[in-house]
Amino acid sequence: MGMTITEKILAAHAGLKAVEPGQLINAKVDLALGNDITAPLAIQEFKKLGVKKVFDPERVVLVPDHFTPAKDIKSAEQAKILRDFAREQGLTHYFEIGRMGIEHCLLPEAGLVGPGDLVIGADSHTCTYGALGAFATGVGSTDLAAAMATGELWFKVPETILFRYHGKLKPWVGGKDLILYTIGRIGVDGARYMAMEFTGEAITNLSMEGRFTMANMAIEAGGKNGIFPVDEKTVEYIRGRLQRDYRIYQSDPDARYNQEIDIDASKIEPQVALPHLPENARSVKEIGEIKIDQVVIGSCTNGRLEDLRVAAQILKGQKVHPEVRLIVIPGTQQIYAAALAEGLIATFIEAGAAVSTPTCGPCLGGHMGILAKGERALATTNRNFVGRMGHPESEVYLAGPAVAAASAVKGRIAAPEEVVK
Amino acid sequence: MGMTITEKILAAHAGLKAVEPGQLINAKVDLALGNDITAPLAIQEFKKLGVKKVFDPERVVLVPDHFTPAKDIKSAEQAKILRDFAREQGLTHYFEIGRMGIEHCLLPEAGLVGPGDLVIGADSHTCTYGALGAFATGVGSTDLAAAMATGELWFKVPETILFRYHGKLKPWVGGKDLILYTIGRIGVDGARYMAMEFTGEAITNLSMEGRFTMANMAIEAGGKNGIFPVDEKTVEYIRGRLQRDYRIYQSDPDARYNQEIDIDASKIEPQVALPHLPENARSVKEIGEIKIDQVVIGSCTNGRLEDLRVAAQILKGQKVHPEVRLIVIPGTQQIYAAALAEGLIATFIEAGAAVSTPTCGPCLGGHMGILAKGERALATTNRNFVGRMGHPESEVYLAGPAVAAASAVKGRIAAPEEVVK
Repeated sequence: MGMTITEKILAAHAGLKAVEPGQLINAKVDLALGNDITAPLAIQEFKKLGVKKVFDPERVVLVPDHFTPAKDIKSAEQAKILRDFAREQGLTHYFEIGRMGIEHCLLPEAGLVGPGDLVIGADSHTCTYGALGAFATGVGSTDLAAAMATGELWFKVPETILFRYHGKLKPWVGGKDLILYTIGRIGVDGARYMAMEFTGEAITNLSMEGRFTMANMAIEAGGKNGIFPVDEKTVEYIRGRLQRDYRIYQSDPDARYNQEIDIDASKIEPQVALPHLPENARSVKEIGEIKIDQVVIGSCTNGRLEDLRVAAQILKGQKVHPEVRLIVIPGTQQIYAAALAEGLIATFIEAGAAVSTPTCGPCLGGHMGILAKGERALATTNRNFVGRMGHPESEVYLAGPAVAAASAVKGRIAAPEEVVK
Repeated sequence: MGMTITEKILAAHAGLKAVEPGQLINAKVDLALGNDITAPLAIQEFKKLGVKKVFDPERVVLVPDHFTPAKDIKSAEQAKILRDFAREQGLTHYFEIGRMGIEHCLLPEAGLVGPGDLVIGADSHTCTYGALGAFATGVGSTDLAAAMATGELWFKVPETILFRYHGKLKPWVGGKDLILYTIGRIGVDGARYMAMEFTGEAITNLSMEGRFTMANMAIEAGGKNGIFPVDEKTVEYIRGRLQRDYRIYQSDPDARYNQEIDIDASKIEPQVALPHLPENARSVKEIGEIKIDQVVIGSCTNGRLEDLRVAAQILKGQKVHPEVRLIVIPGTQQIYAAALAEGLIATFIEAGAAVSTPTCGPCLGGHMGILAKGERALATTNRNFVGRMGHPESEVYLAGPAVAAASAVKGRIAAPEEVVK
C-alpha cells in the first residue's frame, strides 16, 4: 500500500519504512519553535526536566512576535524570558524586534524550513510550513519543552484528505479565497486531526505566498497539518534561503486517503468569512452592505510581499475612508524593506494607513488595533472567533488583501472591482 | 512698566491693556486640545455642564495619540469616546490613526497654532507651541471641559524667567541638549509656575524643531509655559500652514523678569539626563560605560523630521547592536511620509530598527516598547521618572537623537563622534 507525503515524512523521521494512520510514533524533530506567549512556559518546563542544554542550539527557534514591541510590563517580562534563555543557551535563531517578523512568515524566509522537514511549534499556525512540503504542526508548551530537550516527540499519524483544485482562478482570487471557500465547504472540524493535502491545476499556478496562506489555515478546518507537493516554485523559493540538504517526498499513486475532494476553483469569487467562524465563507458579492470601522492587512496568513502588492495595487491613488482605520503590518523586517523599495509603503502612508513594525498584534487581540464594543473589522487574519480582536461584542470578518484594501477605501465590505476596474 | 510676550498675550486675550504677574484673569482660548487619556473625562464633564455644543467646532481639537493604535479594549473604548464626540459635535479637527500624529507634533504642522495664540491642552506638554510665540499650557480635564463649553478659562499671570543662550553650538548639540542643560542648572522646579522665555544668538540660530523641543520641556523645569520671540524662522514655518491672521508680540525692553539667566551655549556638550529626573543632566562624555537594552527615537519632544535626519545620519550604513532594540517613531504621518521620501525610513529599517506608526507609545509607558524589570533605555523623550517606561525597576536616560542613534549602534550610551567621525 502506498503512502501520502505526510506519512512518508513521519515514517522517515521515526526511522520506519512505513507508517499508517492512527499509528503512534516517536519521531525526530528538525526544528522546534516557540514565541513570547508559549515559550516562557516551555522554558519553565524545560528547566524542570533537569536538562542543561537544548538538543541542538541551531534547531530551537524563539521569536517574540505576539506582544512586541512590548505592549506592557507583562509582555516585556515574557519577551525577556526568551531573550535570556537564548543568550544562556547560545541559540542561533533568536530574533529581536527590528530584525525579525511574525514567526510563520519569518522561518521560511530565513531558510530555516525545507521540504521533507518535521517542524513543531508551540503555535497553532505552525502548519504554515506545509507549503514547503514539510510536515509542520502546532503543539503545546510542554510538548515543546520535551522536544527542546530531546529533539524528539510522539505523534499519531493522521489520515489525509486530498483536495484537488481544478481550473484557473478569477481575478483577485488568491490562496485566502481558496482556503476560506474550502473551510466553508467542509466546516471548522471537517479535517479534524487530519492532513490536508492540496493539489491540482489551481495549486500548481498558485504563488508560494498563496500556498503559505492556505497551509496556514489548515488548522481552521481542524487539520493536523496542511501540505503541498514540492514543485519548481518550491525549489525556486528555497534557493538562496535554505543552506542545507533536503528531501522531497511525493504521495504514492495508491496512497490511502480518508476522502478526495474535487473543487472547481474557476467558479470561486473573492470570499469573506462572516463572524464568528472561518467556515461562514460567502462570496463578497453576496453579503450586502456591511459598514466597517477597521481594516487589518497583515498576519502570518496574509502579511507577505504579494499580499502587500495586491493591497497597494488597489490603494494606489486612493484614500482610506474617513471613518475607517486601516492598519498595515508587513510580516517581517525583510518584507517591510522590500515593500519600501517597491514603493508600497509610500502608497499605504499616502492613502492614510497606519503602517506598523512586524507583529501579530491585532490578529489575536494582542495590541496594535484592538476593537471597542460594537466595532466591526475586516481582516486578512485567520480567526474571527467571538472577541478575537477585542471586545466580546465586536465582530471580525475575514478576507484576502484585495477585498481588505477595497473595503478600506469604501468604508464597507467591498469587492476589489468596486475600486479598481 | 513694560510687559513680556507672555503677559502681552494673556492681556490681549483677557481684553485688558496690561496684566502683571500674580493677577487672576479670565481669557479667551484660541484652541482647546484633548487626547485619548484626558478627553474622555473632559467630555464627561462637558456633558454634565448641560451645554449642547462646544464653543467652536473648529477650535476644539481631539487627537487619540497615546494608546493608539488601540493596545487593548480599554484604550479602544477611550478612543471611541473621542471619535463619537467628534462626529456628534462636527469637530473639524479630529485626527484618526493613519492620518494623524503625536498631538504636539501635529497641531503646529496642521497649521492650528500661530504666534500670539492662547492654547490650552489637557496634556502637560502643551507648552510645546510656545516655540511659535504662542502662550500654550497644560490644564486638567475639567478645565478643558470648561474651555470646550465657554471658549474661556481662568489663568494666574506667571512671572517670567529670561534665558539668554550665547555663542555657537558644538556639532551634534541641539535643542534637547540646551533644555536638558538648562533643567540641569535650575532643577525640575526651577521655573515653577513661571514663563521660560528663550532668547539669544544660539536660539536665533536654532531650527524650529529645536525650539519645539525646548518649549516642550519647559514643564520639566516646572514652567507654566515656554516661549520664543517670533523671527523669520517662525514666519517661514507657519507660511503655507496657518490659514488665518496672527499677531506677533515682543517683550518690551523694560519688561519685568523674575530672573535673567545667561548661558554660554558654546560650551555645552551633548547631554544625557540620568535616572530618575530630567535635572540629572551630564555631558555624554562624563557618564562612563552604561549598557542599554533599548533606544527610543520619537515623542512630542524629538519625533520631528530634523530629529530623524540626525539619527539617520548616524545610523546610515550601521547596524543596531545585537543586544539593543531600537524603536523609531515618526511624530506624524506627514513626518513619516517625508522621512520615507528622503530615504530615512529605509536607513532605519536596514539598520535593524522597529519603525512604528506615530504614537506616544513607550514615552509614558503606554505600549510599543515597554521595559521589563532591570532593563535600561535611552530615549529622546521628556521624562525619566521611576517606572515611566515600564517596570518600576527599569531605568530611562534622556538624550537627543544624535546620542540616541550612536548608543543604539554601540550598545551603551555613546557620543555621536564614536560612530561618525
